Amino acid sequence: MTDPRLEGLRRDAPDLRLKTDAADLEHYGRDWTRRWTPAPLAIALPASIEEVQAIVRWANVHRVALVPSGGRTGLSGGAVAAQGELVISLERMNRVLAFDPADRTLTVQPGIALEAVHNAAREHGLTYPVDFAARGSCSIGGNIATNAGGIRVIRYGNTREWITGLKLVTGSGELLDLNRGLVKNSSGYDLRHLAIGSEGTLGVVVEATLRLTDPPPPTNVMLLALPSFDVLMKVFTAFRERLQLEAFEFFTDHALRHVLAHGAQAPFEQTHPYYVVTEFAIGDEAREAAAMAAFEDCMEHGWVSDGVISQSDAQAAQLWRLREGISESLAPRKPYKNDVSVRISAMPAFLEETQALLGGAYPHFEVVWFGHIGDGNLHINVLKPEDVSDADFVAQCEQVTKLLAASLQRHGGSISAEHGIGLVKKAYLGSTRSAAEIAVMRGIKQVLDPNGLMNPGKLFD
Amino acid sequence: MTDPRLEGLRRDAPDLRLKTDAADLEHYGRDWTRRWTPAPLAIALPASIEEVQAIVRWANVHRVALVPSGGRTGLSGGAVAAQGELVISLERMNRVLAFDPADRTLTVQPGIALEAVHNAAREHGLTYPVDFAARGSCSIGGNIATNAGGIRVIRYGNTREWITGLKLVTGSGELLDLNRGLVKNSSGYDLRHLAIGSEGTLGVVVEATLRLTDPPPPTNVMLLALPSFDVLMKVFTAFRERLQLEAFEFFTDHALRHVLAHGAQAPFEQTHPYYVVTEFAIGDEAREAAAMAAFEDCMEHGWVSDGVISQSDAQAAQLWRLREGISESLAPRKPYKNDVSVRISAMPAFLEETQALLGGAYPHFEVVWFGHIGDGNLHINVLKPEDVSDADFVAQCEQVTKLLAASLQRHGGSISAEHGIGLVKKAYLGSTRSAAEIAVMRGIKQVLDPNGLMNPGKLFD
Repeated sequence: MTDPRLEGLRRDAPDLRLKTDAADLEHYGRDWTRRWTPAPLAIALPASIEEVQAIVRWANVHRVALVPSGGRTGLSGGAVAAQGELVISLERMNRVLAFDPADRTLTVQPGIALEAVHNAAREHGLTYPVDFAARGSCSIGGNIATNAGGIRVIRYGNTREWITGLKLVTGSGELLDLNRGLVKNSSGYDLRHLAIGSEGTLGVVVEATLRLTDPPPPTNVMLLALPSFDVLMKVFTAFRERLQLEAFEFFTDHALRHVLAHGAQAPFEQTHPYYVVTEFAIGDEAREAAAMAAFEDCMEHGWVSDGVISQSDAQAAQLWRLREGISESLAPRKPYKNDVSVRISAMPAFLEETQALLGGAYPHFEVVWFGHIGDGNLHINVLKPEDVSDADFVAQCEQVTKLLAASLQRHGGSISAEHGIGLVKKAYLGSTRSAAEIAVMRGIKQVLDPNGLMNPGKLFD
Repeated sequence: MTDPRLEGLRRDAPDLRLKTDAADLEHYGRDWTRRWTPAPLAIALPASIEEVQAIVRWANVHRVALVPSGGRTGLSGGAVAAQGELVISLERMNRVLAFDPADRTLTVQPGIALEAVHNAAREHGLTYPVDFAARGSCSIGGNIATNAGGIRVIRYGNTREWITGLKLVTGSGELLDLNRGLVKNSSGYDLRHLAIGSEGTLGVVVEATLRLTDPPPPTNVMLLALPSFDVLMKVFTAFRERLQLEAFEFFTDHALRHVLAHGAQAPFEQTHPYYVVTEFAIGDEAREAAAMAAFEDCMEHGWVSDGVISQSDAQAAQLWRLREGISESLAPRKPYKNDVSVRISAMPAFLEETQALLGGAYPHFEVVWFGHIGDGNLHINVLKPEDVSDADFVAQCEQVTKLLAASLQRHGGSISAEHGIGLVKKAYLGSTRSAAEIAVMRGIKQVLDPNGLMNPGKLFD
């Protein structure tokens, strides 16, 4: 720890835990992207809001860039520290601070894992309904930074909808206590919502109050086999009209093969080009009949070739694993990820155009599709062939992303549905946000982070 | 129309309708507050986004302050023009532009009345669930400007939750097309949410895309008579635990007397100090049994003295009228209004303190209470005695608001739950938002409205 700036930090915050070992710098300097070489100055592991404020004030004196860091499960490079930044890991600030039964809120520190939030809510007979596969390792602070979505958005919305209070240490070291758990509060600009989704570029989320809700109704999970892509929206509509959908996810046979290779059990004897896993409320005969009616309607129209419905929680989990295991099963192949969205109404035209685009652009690459079709959100994973170098692979994929971005712009979509912009999508921000919007964003960053120290180079330069 | 600046506007926007008659200046220069003397320069009634942009560009050249104006049903002076401003009335931009069945969205111009939105949604078998008594005359643009709440927040949230797209002409005349109806969009700062609740101080809302939802389930309305104030939260909890509440509103006997004097029918033979009107989902026997169980539980505990449940839609409407007629029945008495909120958990302590405060502060004034207790939102209306001048009355009320603001600050509440800050609550903003937050708000306004022309003097100076 010879850097004189760190000595200053040690003086300003005598109890602050700092790590500077090479292994720690690498571990804390990267997220699930593996495109950048970690090179942070050091890792700070504050245990309190006061320590976070001390770090930010010190950073302003010494002009040290800061990277807030949660579970580092991000897929856009938002938590990468490759430029000598100080990483602020929130992993020690991981406690539940309060549960309030009248407000039905849980107040937590930012480093708590999403799954720990789920468990804490369940202990009180309630639910925190945002959910996705990284639940065990992602942190709530990171969820807030990207306005995380996931598999229940169709029913419960994004993270944004569930945050009733937020404490933010801004880039100038001020602690803002935003909205404080109020249901109604019309007292000027809602800076809470400005912070949500800002990817650590305005400040550090140091506490959050989460709204909880009643546990979901009893549900069934159904896996559907689809003969072609163009029936997907028809199947979606048939199910949405009749059922209260908790989830509606699709994936391709390519995706399934990777999950099966990782040990999952094949759901059908035959293979099919496309699959849907959907979860919906049951609990009475009318709803069960509606589910069967939706299925039979789709079978009769030839939109669905086969199907299986869960008969137990264990079987429901098995069916979910086919969808949720995809990202993990692809990870060894270093996938290049696109996470895009359009309005649901624009989905058919966009899908058609994208299929044609990718078929032409990636003749030699394996492309794995899946996504949250009911939210208009598509994940496109391009797998690296072994005989192509990392750099060449990314460069080739970037060429296609340019075309995809142009297509998204035509269809009014977004280059990032739920992963955030970070480093990975920065070059394409202009396909989703106008020059005027980006200028306003820059101006706002200047207000909250006048010295430009909060996660610089992420989102925009 | 002799003001030379207006001649310039006429040249810049040849088809723009302008009004300068004294009666128009008065009509368009004020809202439901009657505290300020209207004195606008003129009234512009644009028919298109381009005309709004032309106005804002002209205003920047001539440094003319602008006041966006909807239905002017606001209660905080947010749409008052008393300083020579140009009023931009959106009343001609009042159409439904599009309905999309796949997205389940309605795209509207800002001047459309809330009730017209309700009707348009209903035509498509769907619901726009934000609702309150001014529905017939308030505009959706105004709802967005104050993040309007109302009587269904307990079930559906505030206006914010229902806006999936927003077009905003900023104070510098740029048109921002925000979020464009996307369900998932993690591409930088959500400026849509920044605009919602900004009370016209950042720009003019010129178009909105509203999310619709399934029609509510069949409901029953119940009116409950309460013997005292301290049982209110107990009754709320007893009902919330058992039922899916669509609304839970309370009012005092004082409030009821004003509504009855305006022609409503007395619900009970006896009078009671407090009343609750609640609406909840029924539709099956279990739910109806749960409603009766909640009622009987409250009766047994002595928390409720009497009750009536609606047997028809007409009776439900009659019961609702007792609550919804309050504001209108009080209007002739020029009430001084407080619209405050705390967390639900803080409600009992806050209510106790507020009762004591108001009892001591207003011994000679009639105080009428009502509110959305399930949202932590209390409306306190102080009625002007005939022998007190307007100015003296307001001055005396302001003294009490100071004490109320201090109490709110202690209880973590808000000086404006749903009416907005406008002119009326400006002096008390600091009780709800910290100096650091207000400084950030000022900085953000500077970014979007560099010449300070958008609704100046509202929210903050």
